Amino acid sequence: MSDRKTNVTPYAQLETRFEELHQLGHAQAMLSWDDAVMMPRGGGPARGEALAALAALAHRTLTAPEVGDLLDRAGASLAQLNAWQQANLRAMRRTHTRAVALPEALVRTNQLATTRCQQIWRAARADNDWNAVKGSLGEVIALAREEAAALGDALALDPYDALLDGYEEGTREAHVTQLFDDLKGFLPGFIDRVIARQTAPFPLPGPFPRDGQHALGEDMMRLLGFDFSRGRLDVSHHPFCGGVPDDTRITTRYSEEEFLESLMAVLHETGHALYQQGLPADWRRQPVGNCLGAAVHESQSLFVEMQMSRGRAFIEFAAPHLRRHLGGKPGDAAWTADNLQAHSRQVRRGYIRVDADELTYPLHVILRFEIERALIAGKLDAADIPDAWNEAMTRYLGLSTEGDYRNGCMQDVHWFAGLFGYFPTYTLGALMAAQWFAAARATLPDLDSQIEAGDFAPLIGWLRRNIHGRGQLKTASELLIDVTGEPLSLRHFKTHLENRYPG
Amino acid sequence: MSDRKTNVTPYAQLETRFEELHQLGHAQAMLSWDDAVMMPRGGGPARGEALAALAALAHRTLTAPEVGDLLDRAGASLAQLNAWQQANLRAMRRTHTRAVALPEALVRTNQLATTRCQQIWRAARADNDWNAVKGSLGEVIALAREEAAALGDALALDPYDALLDGYEEGTREAHVTQLFDDLKGFLPGFIDRVIARQTAPFPLPGPFPRDGQHALGEDMMRLLGFDFSRGRLDVSHHPFCGGVPDDTRITTRYSEEEFLESLMAVLHETGHALYQQGLPADWRRQPVGNCLGAAVHESQSLFVEMQMSRGRAFIEFAAPHLRRHLGGKPGDAAWTADNLQAHSRQVRRGYIRVDADELTYPLHVILRFEIERALIAGKLDAADIPDAWNEAMTRYLGLSTEGDYRNGCMQDVHWFAGLFGYFPTYTLGALMAAQWFAAARATLPDLDSQIEAGDFAPLIGWLRRNIHGRGQLKTASELLIDVTGEPLSLRHFKTHLENRYPG
Repeated sequence: MSDRKTNVTPYAQLETRFEELHQLGHAQAMLSWDDAVMMPRGGGPARGEALAALAALAHRTLTAPEVGDLLDRAGASLAQLNAWQQANLRAMRRTHTRAVALPEALVRTNQLATTRCQQIWRAARADNDWNAVKGSLGEVIALAREEAAALGDALALDPYDALLDGYEEGTREAHVTQLFDDLKGFLPGFIDRVIARQTAPFPLPGPFPRDGQHALGEDMMRLLGFDFSRGRLDVSHHPFCGGVPDDTRITTRYSEEEFLESLMAVLHETGHALYQQGLPADWRRQPVGNCLGAAVHESQSLFVEMQMSRGRAFIEFAAPHLRRHLGGKPGDAAWTADNLQAHSRQVRRGYIRVDADELTYPLHVILRFEIERALIAGKLDAADIPDAWNEAMTRYLGLSTEGDYRNGCMQDVHWFAGLFGYFPTYTLGALMAAQWFAAARATLPDLDSQIEAGDFAPLIGWLRRNIHGRGQLKTASELLIDVTGEPLSLRHFKTHLENRYPG
Repeated sequence: MSDRKTNVTPYAQLETRFEELHQLGHAQAMLSWDDAVMMPRGGGPARGEALAALAALAHRTLTAPEVGDLLDRAGASLAQLNAWQQANLRAMRRTHTRAVALPEALVRTNQLATTRCQQIWRAARADNDWNAVKGSLGEVIALAREEAAALGDALALDPYDALLDGYEEGTREAHVTQLFDDLKGFLPGFIDRVIARQTAPFPLPGPFPRDGQHALGEDMMRLLGFDFSRGRLDVSHHPFCGGVPDDTRITTRYSEEEFLESLMAVLHETGHALYQQGLPADWRRQPVGNCLGAAVHESQSLFVEMQMSRGRAFIEFAAPHLRRHLGGKPGDAAWTADNLQAHSRQVRRGYIRVDADELTYPLHVILRFEIERALIAGKLDAADIPDAWNEAMTRYLGLSTEGDYRNGCMQDVHWFAGLFGYFPTYTLGALMAAQWFAAARATLPDLDSQIEAGDFAPLIGWLRRNIHGRGQLKTASELLIDVTGEPLSLRHFKTHLENRYPG
């Protein structure tokens, strides 16, 4: 750090260092996007090494001995900092505390092991070959336990809580369990009633050429406020949102037989993207200018996809666009708003989480939550996963996955990528999305007519003002109370489901 | 560097550090590729900052005080190292010497200034607006002079020589001047004679759909040995070869009116790519495993494009592929090998370097060489460039560029990107390519019949063995003597031109 002046304040020195971390993060984000979207398969090992080296370098930059000292000294003159700077210092400290809990060797080994395991998983999943990947997954689990224990020690948390806290600050297993127990009590019977009552919609006649689907997706993104001068839409195996605030990249995938899944993926990822593009411009290079955790991030995607886009007003708005891009006839019963709405709200017990409707989705999450906390606690090992999965799928969704790993415990990349504690954030995000949407509706009385007219500026403006533009100025729980007047609650999600799927 | 063990040898510690630099280089290479091929325009400033931060980080890693000490200690026990390790140490020292000559602030300022100047140039060139960019170019020139002076001091070289040496080790202005004076004596009259004698070929009837051109390009790449599991072909404004050895990315651009330029660009970049993909696998992460300088790199692209692909044997081989992909009729006079050969060898005095044939190309390089050495010597300033350009173009090629900046001094990105001392390597590469090809032909008696039959393995194998697979084990001048029996000479280039364009 040869050029760093020593007569600047400790806080300013920290900003310099965290800006450097931000730039390393830029490189990591773009290399990961490229890995998923562009990279030829043979580039995998070299990319894995490069990402591991960047992770180690970032870790070293963050854990250098002087950083703790600077944090202490900056904290001692807190009164000289404004609210954003104070929040920034808080975010720095949180990042630092988690980093110093982990030795660099573990960070590097973990990055290499998870990159390798994902690569093995990709091929093994296609072959339904559990044995090919379970050894590598065992290593990843062992490393995750080690990481959880080290973080737990440093944070005075149980190991699994320490992982949860990394994805969404303040999240605790006990609270998640309580919310999920509520959902387990409520959803199965609700799903039975909806399935018993729903009727099959008219089929939507394909094929739907990719070009038309892509143009439709780009139109929708543009209308919602996605800035294409600072982002792209591409194709990848699994839809995701990546990149950086000034270059936000989302992906989807296309099937010519079916368009709704791909379109909903675009809308979902657009929700993530609007969050990223809407972060406070002045704080882009500092921790406080980042998004909050994974649950809040997911709440933004579900706000757009589930709360808004599957609502009647949006479907009325979208129907002519769909017909225009996909060749639907205006008079055709298949292409009416009623029928499109019915398609977008079909409930079905299925094997695959990412294909699940909003009623069965939480059950997919709950079974993963229950298995992964047992894995981290050492009560289950990699070899036990298939049986545990089959048992839980049968219990929650009435579906056996015996011998079908591809559609069972090998369907999601998360564990193979070392992400334990991430799954619960999907459902926490669904609860939050309902809570935000109720708050937005309360302040925007003309919301439905605006959406139906394609005027999304008021709603997106509400998100920008209340959530996106505030970065990490507040914690997620502070922000929820500030914006919605109450802490995270199941109430709005329940009300939303009861309104959308009336019994 | 907390995890670095101190009981390993100085050389091994250096390998660890240079492997980290290699991984930063991976990130820089992929971010630059993305910048040119994928990035939305609004992502530019953030990308510029990220690249500047990575450049500063690499510089800091390379110039840390302990590195010089490790280099000295490793050099003191040279006998314990094998030939590859010794060459590696030599390459490390060279990189280190150049890096420590430059303060980090200059490296960072330079990276920011050149990224910004390129961004201004992109828009200004489209508008033919010299005034918009000359101020920014002036700053870049001032920084380049500063860099050249600092490097010159450290290396005991004249400033311009210090820049030349950075692109191709051992290159000196005096030697380049002598070679270029020979070319200036020889080429103009030669060009006159060829133009006076050549006849117009039958026009090739378009349009040529992009898909067909792309498939043709990919076919040619595959046949030449490009490994698509470790590389891609994409589209960018200017063709280039980027990425890393295990993920080599080349680009071209398509016009539906004309295909030969695009195809030749693919073949040219394939020459670069084969070099990169053919580097020694065991040394990929170390300096000795890199390509030699820009002249040797260019010699590989011109070996494939100029020496091989515009030769009769390749055209005989390629003609049916061209007809198949581009809709040519076998009996049509336009699509015969004779006519395709005539197209590939048309000589024409033009404004644009990258569109020039192999006879006029060196004159484009010579005028740039003469202007840039005057710029670095302080004998010319940014404001003087348009007049100097116009004067030299008129003198060498009989074409005035007065008021036409776009096709004059704003056509190439190099100076706007801070690349001074690079242009001569194009023509040095052309001389080398002729020299390598003559040596290859001498050891491969059936070369023409192999090429005509599409059997490129012997020729590419020769390149792999003699050049690609040897990385930086020898210097460029050592390698030339080792492989061709003589130092760089104009002789083979002259002979090649006289054979191809007989008088």
